[in-house]
Amino acid sequence: MFESAELGHKLDKETYKKAVTALRADLLEAQFDLKENKKIPVVVLVSGQDGAGKGETINVLYEWMDPRFISTLAFSTPTDEERERPYMWRYWRALPPKGRVGIFAGSWYSGPIHDRIEGDMTQAQMDQRIDQINRFEAMLVNEGALVLKFWFHLTKDGQKRRLKALEKDPHTAWRVTKWNWDRLKTYDQLQVVVGHVLRMTNTPWAPWIIVEGEDDRYRSLTTGKIILDTIRQRLADPDKQVTPVAPPILPNIDGRDVISALDLTHALTKKQYESQLAKWQGRLSELVRDPRFKQRSVICVFEGSDAAGKGGSIRRVTASMDARNYQIVPIAAPTEEERAQPYMWRFWRHVPRVGRFTIFDRSWYGRVLVERVEGFCAEADWLRAYTEINDFEHELSEAGAIIIKFWLQVSKDEQLRRFKEREKIEFKRFKLTDEDWRNREKWDDYHQAVCDMVDRTSSGQAPWTLVEANDKGYARVKVIRTICERLEAALDATLPTTAATPAKGNCRGIKCGKKG
Amino acid sequence: MFESAELGHKLDKETYKKAVTALRADLLEAQFDLKENKKIPVVVLVSGQDGAGKGETINVLYEWMDPRFISTLAFSTPTDEERERPYMWRYWRALPPKGRVGIFAGSWYSGPIHDRIEGDMTQAQMDQRIDQINRFEAMLVNEGALVLKFWFHLTKDGQKRRLKALEKDPHTAWRVTKWNWDRLKTYDQLQVVVGHVLRMTNTPWAPWIIVEGEDDRYRSLTTGKIILDTIRQRLADPDKQVTPVAPPILPNIDGRDVISALDLTHALTKKQYESQLAKWQGRLSELVRDPRFKQRSVICVFEGSDAAGKGGSIRRVTASMDARNYQIVPIAAPTEEERAQPYMWRFWRHVPRVGRFTIFDRSWYGRVLVERVEGFCAEADWLRAYTEINDFEHELSEAGAIIIKFWLQVSKDEQLRRFKEREKIEFKRFKLTDEDWRNREKWDDYHQAVCDMVDRTSSGQAPWTLVEANDKGYARVKVIRTICERLEAALDATLPTTAATPAKGNCRGIKCGKKG
Repeated sequence: MFESAELGHKLDKETYKKAVTALRADLLEAQFDLKENKKIPVVVLVSGQDGAGKGETINVLYEWMDPRFISTLAFSTPTDEERERPYMWRYWRALPPKGRVGIFAGSWYSGPIHDRIEGDMTQAQMDQRIDQINRFEAMLVNEGALVLKFWFHLTKDGQKRRLKALEKDPHTAWRVTKWNWDRLKTYDQLQVVVGHVLRMTNTPWAPWIIVEGEDDRYRSLTTGKIILDTIRQRLADPDKQVTPVAPPILPNIDGRDVISALDLTHALTKKQYESQLAKWQGRLSELVRDPRFKQRSVICVFEGSDAAGKGGSIRRVTASMDARNYQIVPIAAPTEEERAQPYMWRFWRHVPRVGRFTIFDRSWYGRVLVERVEGFCAEADWLRAYTEINDFEHELSEAGAIIIKFWLQVSKDEQLRRFKEREKIEFKRFKLTDEDWRNREKWDDYHQAVCDMVDRTSSGQAPWTLVEANDKGYARVKVIRTICERLEAALDATLPTTAATPAKGNCRGIKCGKKG
Repeated sequence: MFESAELGHKLDKETYKKAVTALRADLLEAQFDLKENKKIPVVVLVSGQDGAGKGETINVLYEWMDPRFISTLAFSTPTDEERERPYMWRYWRALPPKGRVGIFAGSWYSGPIHDRIEGDMTQAQMDQRIDQINRFEAMLVNEGALVLKFWFHLTKDGQKRRLKALEKDPHTAWRVTKWNWDRLKTYDQLQVVVGHVLRMTNTPWAPWIIVEGEDDRYRSLTTGKIILDTIRQRLADPDKQVTPVAPPILPNIDGRDVISALDLTHALTKKQYESQLAKWQGRLSELVRDPRFKQRSVICVFEGSDAAGKGGSIRRVTASMDARNYQIVPIAAPTEEERAQPYMWRFWRHVPRVGRFTIFDRSWYGRVLVERVEGFCAEADWLRAYTEINDFEHELSEAGAIIIKFWLQVSKDEQLRRFKEREKIEFKRFKLTDEDWRNREKWDDYHQAVCDMVDRTSSGQAPWTLVEANDKGYARVKVIRTICERLEAALDATLPTTAATPAKGNCRGIKCGKKG
């Protein structure tokens, strides 16, 4: 893997100077085209051994390119806002928008490599993280990103020479600490870990580019040329996508499916409703005030047919809570800043810290529901969304979030009755839109999309709860009861101490574990 | 001040119920109109004594209104990302966008009141903060916000009764801690501080609304009614603004001004340029690596005539730095999310943490330059911008930021020469736009705008440095030298210990302290 980067590559000053003059102009032009094109974010990872010239090359790139449209993010110790969210949150918030270049000095690879060497992570845990990273990068590429992963390599002797040279120069001596020399001692161990990580993440969509690090001129020029060439290639074919590997949708041949199987006649009398509602609301009110809740967070997702009563259910849930501890995030059309990012970005930005409760009124499932049915995105996009959604929820759950997802289902007749009722009420907030009627015409398409969604995204950690919603009272009680039960189970599994990291599960099935 | 809130206001259940039914429908409708109107953010501060029912009333408001378009922010201990930025940063990031309601449970008032009672803040410091708050709220109102500040008041006996009642109810007992009872002992002291703060911040544009807190029904209904009435009033007259009090612009009657006074013949030979550039770049490279810099941050602003060489100067500055420690923020047209916020919001979001260097390529001064000259905003808006900008920079500087502002000036002839030169270069990044030529036609208007800007926003902490830029070398050296000198002076004034808070100055002059 590192063979070609141990040949002692070197470049003389004259050759370098000549090459750089041409490269600079070309890079600026490519960057300009990228900015005008507004479709491609460029994600550049600069990683490698200590002293391999990561900082030097980043600075040279800044000299060559227009620094106003590059951002460089160095990731040192996570802030507390970052620590209280999933591992990938800090990287999501740092992604460059379309048309810009984002350089990551230190990246999602730094954590696992460091932890593995320090012995804070088992091989199995690291492989899980690697798997997650591969999926994350595939998502980026599918979203149109150009992902360039550089590894600057040094031989052991080369590293020793580089550190000595840095130490000798008064301008750079401050950079070499005892820690760097200690790292040299663990060179072989690092190589083993890095070799494994690089091999496992050397995907067709985001391959590693290994560059010999010892000679400044060789390293920087090689890096610059690769950046130029790959940007040009992508600009020539901006819609290029990696074909997502998604299992085909099962045909429904016997008319049986999870939605048709629901018994929509479930109902409560007014008296039953009132007493059960009071009971579960009281229970919920205690649960969210449980001191163990401070280590967890809750993410509730409400999806459902139009007029299925999502709003009413949400209000019955929040009635038990303190407004200072929850947020309701209504999902509407994405904003301009959101459109310049991968699809999931606008949900990542609302991920709560621990101790908080976030309710999504509609959610990331829009991709596989309305966007699929209405053709708002390409088939390839919604097909890959199932995997991306599962990955997202897995990350959340790994970070201690309790994920509770509801699909509220009414019958076609009941929906019609409610539409007509709404038409009668003059109060405009409930005004029916043409869109509601249009959606109704696609009832069967939505039905199929919901079944596929449940099949593909109901996981052990994040099961769907299907709610029979023809009777509002029954639905509301079922919603609150489910939240209480999930919360209770999760809190019981939470240690009463302030252990920062929740248990890391490896259950990641996409199989349906639906409740109720 | 509190007299009307000590009358023992009380509401019977029947009256309350009837009033609430009407109020709910009206509130929902008002909220809907607000959302459609998209012009007015509603900022509701809910503050008051312990046990005065702040949480209860917020929860009731959620029941009455559509919770999807309200956000409630409770501010407890600041996170590290917040602590390393100016006091107001956490509130700026929490502002509701236009059309939404943001409830602040705890607000910019909590800090100073708490610190004053604990003795961590002198009266003078508190009055400075109050002054800042008044200016901040005036800005909000000028930007179209409806600012409602509620103070829920309790008499001393009333507070004792409320705490006892809360303690007796098993559902609320957890909320009453020893800390609350201790606070009761300091009731009188709190009243003195609160009385002062409320009086000083009882402005015509954001007056306090004092509501007796003891009776739940009375308090919530009063609050709800006031919210409804004020939203309705504002919707009836959405463009209402507080007239900003800004001193008139001085007429230029003798042709003398800071820009005309510049000697644009300053120049360096190539040799002088190279040796001086190397010298100051080396110096800068050491300064940004000084350990004391970890306690400070630098905010550099580059403004200037078109083709004055801002980009080239910025590149000479960043050449001395490590890309991992600085960000360049190019200011272009605001995004959709930025347009839904006060003008200064999009700069607040880029405020760096300590230890970082941020360069703004164009800046918040756009308001008093291009927006003023081209008529992109109302006169009232750019007139009040001077004050808002000074307030912003004062906050930054109070939090330890070193603010360095450059105006690069070329002569009209030199600009023409550069435009023509650019036209000859085919490389498209330097393509001249029609806008450049149009701006040139308004040369005199820009000239006047720059003079006014310097006069009004060059302060002791954030002086303008006017750079004679006909000679590029001279300009670049002056820029780097100025940064070095400012940085050096600031670091010398920084204690070598890790004292978290920088010295709080009270110098806030708007007088011109320009250098060079």
